[in-house]
Amino acid sequence: MLMIDKQKVEPQQKPHILVCNDDGIEGEGIHALAAAMKKIGRVTVVAPAEPHSGMSHAMTLGTPLRIRKFLKNGHFFGYTVSGTPVDCIKVALSHILPSKPDIIVSGINYGSNTAINTIYSGTVAAALEGAIQGITSLAFSLTTYENADFTYAAKFARKLAKKALAESLPTDTILSVNIPNVPESEIAGIVIAEQGRSRWEEAAIERHDMFGNPYYWLSGTLRLLDDSMHKDEFAVRRNYVTITPLSCDLTNHQYISALEQWNLKK
Amino acid sequence: MLMIDKQKVEPQQKPHILVCNDDGIEGEGIHALAAAMKKIGRVTVVAPAEPHSGMSHAMTLGTPLRIRKFLKNGHFFGYTVSGTPVDCIKVALSHILPSKPDIIVSGINYGSNTAINTIYSGTVAAALEGAIQGITSLAFSLTTYENADFTYAAKFARKLAKKALAESLPTDTILSVNIPNVPESEIAGIVIAEQGRSRWEEAAIERHDMFGNPYYWLSGTLRLLDDSMHKDEFAVRRNYVTITPLSCDLTNHQYISALEQWNLKK
Repeated sequence: MLMIDKQKVEPQQKPHILVCNDDGIEGEGIHALAAAMKKIGRVTVVAPAEPHSGMSHAMTLGTPLRIRKFLKNGHFFGYTVSGTPVDCIKVALSHILPSKPDIIVSGINYGSNTAINTIYSGTVAAALEGAIQGITSLAFSLTTYENADFTYAAKFARKLAKKALAESLPTDTILSVNIPNVPESEIAGIVIAEQGRSRWEEAAIERHDMFGNPYYWLSGTLRLLDDSMHKDEFAVRRNYVTITPLSCDLTNHQYISALEQWNLKK
Repeated sequence: MLMIDKQKVEPQQKPHILVCNDDGIEGEGIHALAAAMKKIGRVTVVAPAEPHSGMSHAMTLGTPLRIRKFLKNGHFFGYTVSGTPVDCIKVALSHILPSKPDIIVSGINYGSNTAINTIYSGTVAAALEGAIQGITSLAFSLTTYENADFTYAAKFARKLAKKALAESLPTDTILSVNIPNVPESEIAGIVIAEQGRSRWEEAAIERHDMFGNPYYWLSGTLRLLDDSMHKDEFAVRRNYVTITPLSCDLTNHQYISALEQWNLKK
């Protein structure tokens, strides 16, 4: 019988770092991130058992979740949860960790989470869920799906995590970091950027199965709508690391007073 | 062989209204919403085949989607998509509708989508996906999971949809409407409200299966953190209809300049 005992509180002074992602526990990026974090703290990895890209802030309500231990080269590496990135954070905080971690880091994601991808991203959502629960949280994404080199990204993640542990972030706010997939020598610098407006031009593909029935597969190409170094997608394409503060408040505050002029009556 | 032919463009002047939800095509709320919309326009219903509450902005990347026709009392009611609310909007726009609809309405959801539920909600996400694709979009939620009476909610949805068709909303912005589950006579009024900060106190439940292995089921209770009529959860509890303008820009703009003071170097 597999027992998931809550970890014991260890009397160490090193910060406790919860590491999550959306590519699943076998994703290369989470191993690079966990290794980097082990240099500055005690690490617990809790990640989806399967890849969950594009899962946004989805959580699993209709079915139960399982927690399992995951071995790497015969040694305990972390826990898997049979659900989404947000499920991982919720279950880690309620049933795996002995107390709130000092920081949550999510990633390192395959593929940038700039512009509209911010709202589709499970990597970002895991960090936001951490912030909602009052924990300093960071999300890291690398701008490629192939030939990924996490070396500089992991190094920068470690540096930013140290800084974030020393500083404090506003309520319900995370930092989402996008890192170009280039050697450190080609990194142009760091930009604090806004979420851009670039978005997908949809082209769900229609195919037919062996019975002649159609099926549809989501696809598309990202259309660049950003034209300033203040926007994440624009800057990261110019080899800048972008850092974007994101919050879970979706209110369009600027539009409140205009909407009041609609004078709606019940 | 089931063929999903794109609808033909009809030369009518009535607005074309796309109706979606996250409770699935069998949810009572979408039938009330579609009936209300038929009084003001041509309606196409495209909804998840199965309930997808709490799916947020998740989309289906790893598997194909199926579109099927759904009959109600032997008559065509709408299309189902074997995916999430966001999948429905994407596939409706790319493969079902002949052109962009004039408006998208999502709901009527069982349960309020105020405060933190805003980011978990598939109902809200479907409307946001519409806004991302440049379409005026509205989300409607009723504050109950049981004994739902959609009468007033549907009536108000029709009224607001007419108004929204005549006005214009800012780029990438939807209106999310929460409606108390009370008779019209008990509705206290309309409030333009911000997304509140109320959130779930987590209590994922641990149980054991017949083999003695543990499983976990997400649960919790909503903790009220709002104390003003300017916040959605506070106002809707006082029998006000709340209307909240939501955008897909998560940037915490107020924190940009403070973050620049961190003086991060590569």
